[in-house]
Amino acid sequence: MSPKITTELLRQLRQVMKNPKYVQEPVQAYIVPSGDAHQSEYIAPCDCRRAFISGFDGSAGTAIVTEQHAAMWTDGRYFLQAAQQMDNNWTLMKMGLKDTPTQEDWLVSVLPEGSKVGVDPFIIPADQWKRMSKALRSAGHDLVPVKENLIDTIWTDCPQRPCKPLITLDLSYTGVSWREKIVSLRSKMAERKVLWFVLTALDEVAWLFNLRGSDVEYNPVFFAYAVIGMNTIRLFIDGDRMMDPDVREHLQLDSTLEPEFKIQVMPYGSILSELQAVGASLSPKEKVWLSDKASYALTEAIPKAYRYLTPYTPICIAKAVKNASETEGMRRAHIKDAVALCELFNWLEKEVPKGTVTEIIAADKAEQFRSQQKDFVELSFATISSTGPNGAIIHYKPVPETNRTLSVSEIYLLDSGAQYKDGTTDVTRTMHFGTPSAYEKECFTYVLKGHIAVSAAVFPNGTKGHLLDSFARSALWDSGLDYLHGTGHGVGSFLNVHEGPCGISYKTFADEPLEAGMIVSDEPGYYEDGSFGIRIENVVLVVPAETKYNFKNRGSLTFEPLTLVPIQTKMIDVNLLTEKECNWVNDYHQKCREVIGAELERQGRHEALQWLIRETEPLTRVQ
Amino acid sequence: MSPKITTELLRQLRQVMKNPKYVQEPVQAYIVPSGDAHQSEYIAPCDCRRAFISGFDGSAGTAIVTEQHAAMWTDGRYFLQAAQQMDNNWTLMKMGLKDTPTQEDWLVSVLPEGSKVGVDPFIIPADQWKRMSKALRSAGHDLVPVKENLIDTIWTDCPQRPCKPLITLDLSYTGVSWREKIVSLRSKMAERKVLWFVLTALDEVAWLFNLRGSDVEYNPVFFAYAVIGMNTIRLFIDGDRMMDPDVREHLQLDSTLEPEFKIQVMPYGSILSELQAVGASLSPKEKVWLSDKASYALTEAIPKAYRYLTPYTPICIAKAVKNASETEGMRRAHIKDAVALCELFNWLEKEVPKGTVTEIIAADKAEQFRSQQKDFVELSFATISSTGPNGAIIHYKPVPETNRTLSVSEIYLLDSGAQYKDGTTDVTRTMHFGTPSAYEKECFTYVLKGHIAVSAAVFPNGTKGHLLDSFARSALWDSGLDYLHGTGHGVGSFLNVHEGPCGISYKTFADEPLEAGMIVSDEPGYYEDGSFGIRIENVVLVVPAETKYNFKNRGSLTFEPLTLVPIQTKMIDVNLLTEKECNWVNDYHQKCREVIGAELERQGRHEALQWLIRETEPLTRVQ
Repeated sequence: MSPKITTELLRQLRQVMKNPKYVQEPVQAYIVPSGDAHQSEYIAPCDCRRAFISGFDGSAGTAIVTEQHAAMWTDGRYFLQAAQQMDNNWTLMKMGLKDTPTQEDWLVSVLPEGSKVGVDPFIIPADQWKRMSKALRSAGHDLVPVKENLIDTIWTDCPQRPCKPLITLDLSYTGVSWREKIVSLRSKMAERKVLWFVLTALDEVAWLFNLRGSDVEYNPVFFAYAVIGMNTIRLFIDGDRMMDPDVREHLQLDSTLEPEFKIQVMPYGSILSELQAVGASLSPKEKVWLSDKASYALTEAIPKAYRYLTPYTPICIAKAVKNASETEGMRRAHIKDAVALCELFNWLEKEVPKGTVTEIIAADKAEQFRSQQKDFVELSFATISSTGPNGAIIHYKPVPETNRTLSVSEIYLLDSGAQYKDGTTDVTRTMHFGTPSAYEKECFTYVLKGHIAVSAAVFPNGTKGHLLDSFARSALWDSGLDYLHGTGHGVGSFLNVHEGPCGISYKTFADEPLEAGMIVSDEPGYYEDGSFGIRIENVVLVVPAETKYNFKNRGSLTFEPLTLVPIQTKMIDVNLLTEKECNWVNDYHQKCREVIGAELERQGRHEALQWLIRETEPLTRVQ
Repeated sequence: MSPKITTELLRQLRQVMKNPKYVQEPVQAYIVPSGDAHQSEYIAPCDCRRAFISGFDGSAGTAIVTEQHAAMWTDGRYFLQAAQQMDNNWTLMKMGLKDTPTQEDWLVSVLPEGSKVGVDPFIIPADQWKRMSKALRSAGHDLVPVKENLIDTIWTDCPQRPCKPLITLDLSYTGVSWREKIVSLRSKMAERKVLWFVLTALDEVAWLFNLRGSDVEYNPVFFAYAVIGMNTIRLFIDGDRMMDPDVREHLQLDSTLEPEFKIQVMPYGSILSELQAVGASLSPKEKVWLSDKASYALTEAIPKAYRYLTPYTPICIAKAVKNASETEGMRRAHIKDAVALCELFNWLEKEVPKGTVTEIIAADKAEQFRSQQKDFVELSFATISSTGPNGAIIHYKPVPETNRTLSVSEIYLLDSGAQYKDGTTDVTRTMHFGTPSAYEKECFTYVLKGHIAVSAAVFPNGTKGHLLDSFARSALWDSGLDYLHGTGHGVGSFLNVHEGPCGISYKTFADEPLEAGMIVSDEPGYYEDGSFGIRIENVVLVVPAETKYNFKNRGSLTFEPLTLVPIQTKMIDVNLLTEKECNWVNDYHQKCREVIGAELERQGRHEALQWLIRETEPLTRVQ
């Protein structure tokens, strides 16, 4: 990787920072955050402004350019990559290190007195604006919104904002019509006494209208906003996508409808002015509900006294609890996904010893097998296909420079998933195609014990996921081991592979309680720098648990694995398992054999079926 | 309990709320919080202002009196008690119930426009003031500080503020001199670039100066503040306590000292004016360190720009990590405490069948046995002596109206502890003096499994206690059971039995990481309303753990029980224990037998020794 030369770009940016065409008064610093206007995790090429100006294209980072300096804040995952991709114009600010200043402190230290710091108000979340603005103000500076994005003014070959066709999902996929979802949203609005609700997250818009798109890689979403009133529905979306007869029919755009279900389609870019009109029309005590992560621009459109901000919107919470149709879809998607992985692992078992399979080839092969399955749409994230030391890089993605050949002497870790029209998958398996060492088996078995401890946990209704995180670590902790990431994240239903409001992590204290119907991942791991990585990940469904007693009538919950892919028994030191754990593995493999076996049979994939049967032989524990 | 008649008192209070002698302008509402000026958990009689005005003397509650209304907010523990103790002038506001308004919302709903709400600025913590002031202001009212406490103006027979003699602790108890503590505090102040540090919590003052007092029941503290500068030490304390030659010698008040260790003794009441003088003397960038729980009055004495507020002070954190002398003292205290409990349980075993032992008699007997031990000072909290259904009331304290007789057919729960000059104890044992039912044994065994899961947990350095809480519940959860309190709290060394900054709870997210030398309780339970209560509590010391591996060189920790009192094996269903758990019990009992047995022998308590030996017979698990 050679760094991007940014001297000329920075010169141009510094010019527009003073150009009265774009700024009322010159700004002495300009902040370029990572995100888009929807606070998306994955962003479209046209929104990769920080990568454009700096060259650094990791998933997290904030650039700040002043008249003299250019600095980039990013976290430990990206120190090396950022240093390689950026030229000498840039200073790397290593977040998490003791001596690294915060953006605010740095700005205060380098800016001349009474400076103005500019930022695109559509990109910066309101809560971040508030914090930064306060810090700057107390040091005599001003954070100012710059309406036109200054990067866009110098980005001459900026790709167009994607505007791809939409997919309509019928009731067999969604279980609930968009009209019913609107009714239920309005009842929650009425409970909180709010008159308007603003949808800014792309997956929330997609979920509410039972539509999907492909504007952003891996996430089946489309660029849109929506504003829901008690009697009005406004959808802000561009392009001729609304001309599609399927979409028109789905949204009943040409039907005679009760006025409260009539969708007004408006240009994507008109959200601000429309919201300002809403803001101006409010009487005292009338409230507008927004996520506290919505952009500063949209939040400011509603006068402060009228705002009702929550960390999680009612759509985010409703979306997380899957109904029967969504759950069934997720089950189907995971069965197909398991078929693809059985094919892949069977193929790898034959090919790896030949020494011709690289990480990239294995990842491509996985995609190929998945794409053969019904309703396959795309991958749900960039495949982590990593062998040996690469496995210890938690967010690894093979590129030609790092691409390693799989062998019979190294552990192989594959974390991959797909979007199917009926569901989203995310599964990690760690395999050895030769003979694992006793130490590798020992570590793998601790990780497995943690995986089982979460998967088999029984806990009261109302329990938050972070209270389960230590269960996943206990076996590792006993031996002085650990892993430095959370244990699980929410998973969408043919939607984003990472979604709120629930999860299983030592860090997440703002998570919502787990409820039956929620779907999360269970993915403990162990990583030895320079040697290997181990992770065992299933997607699991929260289900009611039968218990002997029922304290305070609260009811209990547990997890049911949706992922049904064998866990390599060759890697297990069975003597480290308790009887209960051993039974869990055998029951799990029995279910893989039954459910995935039947589907492999149906699809006529006999060789993969033989592989599955071999891989699901019961473990026997020596007493 | 008959309610306190408050009609006349409320009339008087409403008069002084308008009396220009006390208020600049009349206040339309007056808030009477629970606490004292030091945010103490236990308060002196002179600080029980809320109990005085309302009759309700539970440990938590806030009274608000307006011209028309008088309302009391308290939580579920006290609904019944508050309803019984208050007359019809009062409205009970049941906190935690859905329809109960917050204090702010209620004030807004009952006050005439533009009202003033008064509160004693010394009693209300700064963070609470901020929240309430903001809410009132946004509704057009004002929260105003009323310098003279209005309750005190009408409380004609208010007891005097206690001013009892001090106890000096020499190095054999404290391990570190107060001078060394000051040096270490100043180095932490220098790190954070603060010039002044203000001590407001009573146990922090006591710890820093290696002094103890008895101004407050159960807590060996004394009323005082301290302000530490880089070159000055100011101790704000009343009475002739500073005339005591021991104290003068201990604090070196009459010695020729380096000026930075010279203690200036000032009147308790002069803290505000002295702090205001400090505040007025500051130059830009000079900071004063305060707890964010310090009173509004003291916080306001320092202009906002000069304040450095943290949830836990450096003293609070240093105090939590016990040094070798403190740890040894705690061990000694727990040995003596165990001797007293062996005597008690041996006595109960003989006496309970006679039907003459009540909860109060048992509690008194426990105190009597403790008081026979060397360096006994007082109890560390009100003994919870409860049998049968009373055991299910988590904060029960026997009073004549509820006093129940112990019998051979009910479970008995004793949660008790003492202050010894060398340490503080807190231990709960649950016993049956007849034959427990299978169900009682089952529940007891789940609680025991939870107790062991925490006590034997191994976890990395830097782990916060709340990450261990679910370990204590897992066995109960598996059977659909749970308990509605946290699992553990920090314990002081001859100081408050509850102290920060660490603990083990599903609720505590602001806790500091556990460190070797910290001391916490481990006390899971199970409570069946109307039937019985079970709790097993040891005080445990955080110690380094030996592990097979050492990930990232972080090191591991575990717990060592300081409490060494047999856990009644009669209550254990041994078939529910794993081999590991069974071994833990046997090892624990072996240690009780060795350590406490030797001390019983030394003290010539042969009958109690026989009891101990019987109670520590090893369990045998049927395979």
